[in-house]
Amino acid sequence: MAARPMKLGLNIVANGAHAAGWRLPEAKADAALDFELWTMLATRAETACLHFMFWADGAAIRHNAPSQEALAYLARIDVWEPLTVIGALAALTKRLGFIASVSTTFNEPYHVARKLASLDHISKGRVGWNVVTSWSEQEARNFGRAALMPHAQRYARAEEFVDVVTALWDSFEDDAFIRDKASGRYFDADKLHPPGHAGRHFAVEGPLNIARPVQGYPIIAQAGSSGPGQALGTRIADIIYTAQKDKAAAAAFYRAIKAQAASIGRDPARVLVMPGILPIIGATRRQAADRFEALQELVPPALGLPLLKASFGDLAGLDLDGPLPPPLPESNALKSEHAALVRLAAAEGMTIRKLYQILAGASGHYIVHGTASDVADRMQDWFEGEACDGFNLMPAWLPGAAFDLFDQLVPELQRRGLAQTAYAGDGTLRGSLGLPRPPHRRHRSSAPGEDRNA
Amino acid sequence: MAARPMKLGLNIVANGAHAAGWRLPEAKADAALDFELWTMLATRAETACLHFMFWADGAAIRHNAPSQEALAYLARIDVWEPLTVIGALAALTKRLGFIASVSTTFNEPYHVARKLASLDHISKGRVGWNVVTSWSEQEARNFGRAALMPHAQRYARAEEFVDVVTALWDSFEDDAFIRDKASGRYFDADKLHPPGHAGRHFAVEGPLNIARPVQGYPIIAQAGSSGPGQALGTRIADIIYTAQKDKAAAAAFYRAIKAQAASIGRDPARVLVMPGILPIIGATRRQAADRFEALQELVPPALGLPLLKASFGDLAGLDLDGPLPPPLPESNALKSEHAALVRLAAAEGMTIRKLYQILAGASGHYIVHGTASDVADRMQDWFEGEACDGFNLMPAWLPGAAFDLFDQLVPELQRRGLAQTAYAGDGTLRGSLGLPRPPHRRHRSSAPGEDRNA
Repeated sequence: MAARPMKLGLNIVANGAHAAGWRLPEAKADAALDFELWTMLATRAETACLHFMFWADGAAIRHNAPSQEALAYLARIDVWEPLTVIGALAALTKRLGFIASVSTTFNEPYHVARKLASLDHISKGRVGWNVVTSWSEQEARNFGRAALMPHAQRYARAEEFVDVVTALWDSFEDDAFIRDKASGRYFDADKLHPPGHAGRHFAVEGPLNIARPVQGYPIIAQAGSSGPGQALGTRIADIIYTAQKDKAAAAAFYRAIKAQAASIGRDPARVLVMPGILPIIGATRRQAADRFEALQELVPPALGLPLLKASFGDLAGLDLDGPLPPPLPESNALKSEHAALVRLAAAEGMTIRKLYQILAGASGHYIVHGTASDVADRMQDWFEGEACDGFNLMPAWLPGAAFDLFDQLVPELQRRGLAQTAYAGDGTLRGSLGLPRPPHRRHRSSAPGEDRNA
Repeated sequence: MAARPMKLGLNIVANGAHAAGWRLPEAKADAALDFELWTMLATRAETACLHFMFWADGAAIRHNAPSQEALAYLARIDVWEPLTVIGALAALTKRLGFIASVSTTFNEPYHVARKLASLDHISKGRVGWNVVTSWSEQEARNFGRAALMPHAQRYARAEEFVDVVTALWDSFEDDAFIRDKASGRYFDADKLHPPGHAGRHFAVEGPLNIARPVQGYPIIAQAGSSGPGQALGTRIADIIYTAQKDKAAAAAFYRAIKAQAASIGRDPARVLVMPGILPIIGATRRQAADRFEALQELVPPALGLPLLKASFGDLAGLDLDGPLPPPLPESNALKSEHAALVRLAAAEGMTIRKLYQILAGASGHYIVHGTASDVADRMQDWFEGEACDGFNLMPAWLPGAAFDLFDQLVPELQRRGLAQTAYAGDGTLRGSLGLPRPPHRRHRSSAPGEDRNA
């Protein structure tokens, strides 16, 4: 197969995508609140012709299990709200895209539609929305709820939320604003279509008080891997974000997403699957392996041990470098996590410490260590083996691991024809990703099988 | 009295603060969606050493009375969401402040606290929040409500909302983040203080997932002029925004605010009263008067007549250049507006057209036309007569009326020592306004009469 460029994003997680990244001697521990550093990352990402920067997000200090003590080890508690930082970085760049996670569980469609439309105008069509439903109890308690809504309810709300947002973006047709000074008419009232939505979760009369976004709809990404998550993603998303740890599982996920998209009449080529990847790059394999081990060793037991509790019980007092006790019986609440954990624990030479380091370090993402060429090999293998359409690159610490991407990995991919060396398209993120601009709903053909996003 | 500089803001209202501003031949009718123009306005405002840019806001196409037909004359329906544009403009400036209106009626305190904290970090301490409670039925219907909450309920919610937001900003003490690589402790858990708020309108556990804002608290502005509005403003605000049409009323308002602040133990000098002013500047008085008349004549009857309906009935069919019919009996809902309208209507030579032009043109703000020197005289008279601490300058159309401010009015004020020629303070908006940084609530002295904002 002739080489073709993959889609590449830069996914910055607080002070580094590895939980202990900030503790490396060379790391800037307060990177997440250093705007000059963010500016440099965006500028270098644009020079490297990456398609976009991407942000996970939560409206809380989120944790699955850590004790109160463990909180103090969390470097991900001091971060910016992504829509505000996107405004700032958009002003300093010309072609790079920006995709922010925004929850449908603790927001209102009007605010989300409006902020994204506004950013899409400010950036001249370079923003995207990663639709998330929130997973933490901590977020619920910041918004007047005693507990997180059940999974099914969150996804039902998300489905309706996205439909209201796209209807709000279609409040005005593209050519609605005539601004006719002679007659005084600012817009053509026939081209105004307030959604007038009255649904199960939302009642939104509209219209949105802003012209249709530059991209028609900003790019929509989605990251749910559950059944309802995949159903939502394949229906509404341009990009599917996923955490996949091995190629076979990634390829199966890829096939499932593409098949599901085709089954509802969408063009599978227009649903881009982009897993996260956490590359640890060294000048030699030895150096990369040492860096990886150094990072893993920096994960404190207080952060790691609570993650094993639901599956192995309280391990305090046991030798951390000794074997794991037998797993507890499966609990319903954590079914898939439990099974994966028990499988991992059965690996040769696995100790308590190693297991919690694996769990706490990269939050389920694909960690690869080696030379830039080694990492490029693995990415090429996934890409050409139809396990993905590209990757979200996650620097393990800042800024060094990001520099390794810009200085070594991306040039290596470019040499192989696997990364673009110039931006394609019309200047918008949609154009750069090769995705067409969605026409206004009044001008969409009703041909069967037509892609609603095209 | 020796001249001292007044506080000056630039209040940009969509495509111009005058309803018909966009219709002038020299106006850029789509100014509100032109980011290069916004960049130029911010850059020039900074060169002119203005303290801040200021945005009104509503999450709807808001109107008090206009007919469906009149909607098409509204140029204020196609605007950006201010928090997103602040992010962008903050990245392009160094000293200028940015104050956005954000409603407490249709938002959640956690989101508002977080976005403002984030922007305060990105801008290095240059943002502010204008607390508004929303006045339009249209906004209510965009957020699942059949009607706007009653005034008293909106203000009760606003009081609690602001208290939750400041508590969230105090989630971490200023020196909570130790980022100790050796021990792995990212912050000192003793310096974490989640609000744990459980009140009448909100339950917010916290903490906020971001370090304390650079300014401690971003600047808080407030614009309510009702009893509850003044009570809220004098309790929580650094800046009181107000629309005042004549000096005597402005001076009475100023005295009332300062007295009310003093009565609750705040330093009245730390509650800045800044009315909006809409200057129409010409090279000569004649030219300025002609410009003003041209603007007024461009207000279409469809936009203006509905504003008279509640007080004078349906005026369709009457001669617009003839006298007004007798006013209808006072209605409870519109008491103060009705009385003001009837007073205005009694002025000599007042016609139907003139009255609706006055009402629709400047939305109750002080319009002054004349040479730059004339306008500076009026501003100096208000300022030295203790009717204000400064002004929010509102360009009637864009960009010309803004250029008149930068090229003529501000230099004239600077020559008189009434406008600063360099920024004061530590680089923050709070510093530039001469207002102290509020200490964390755990370190605030409990001396009686202490200003909570100081």
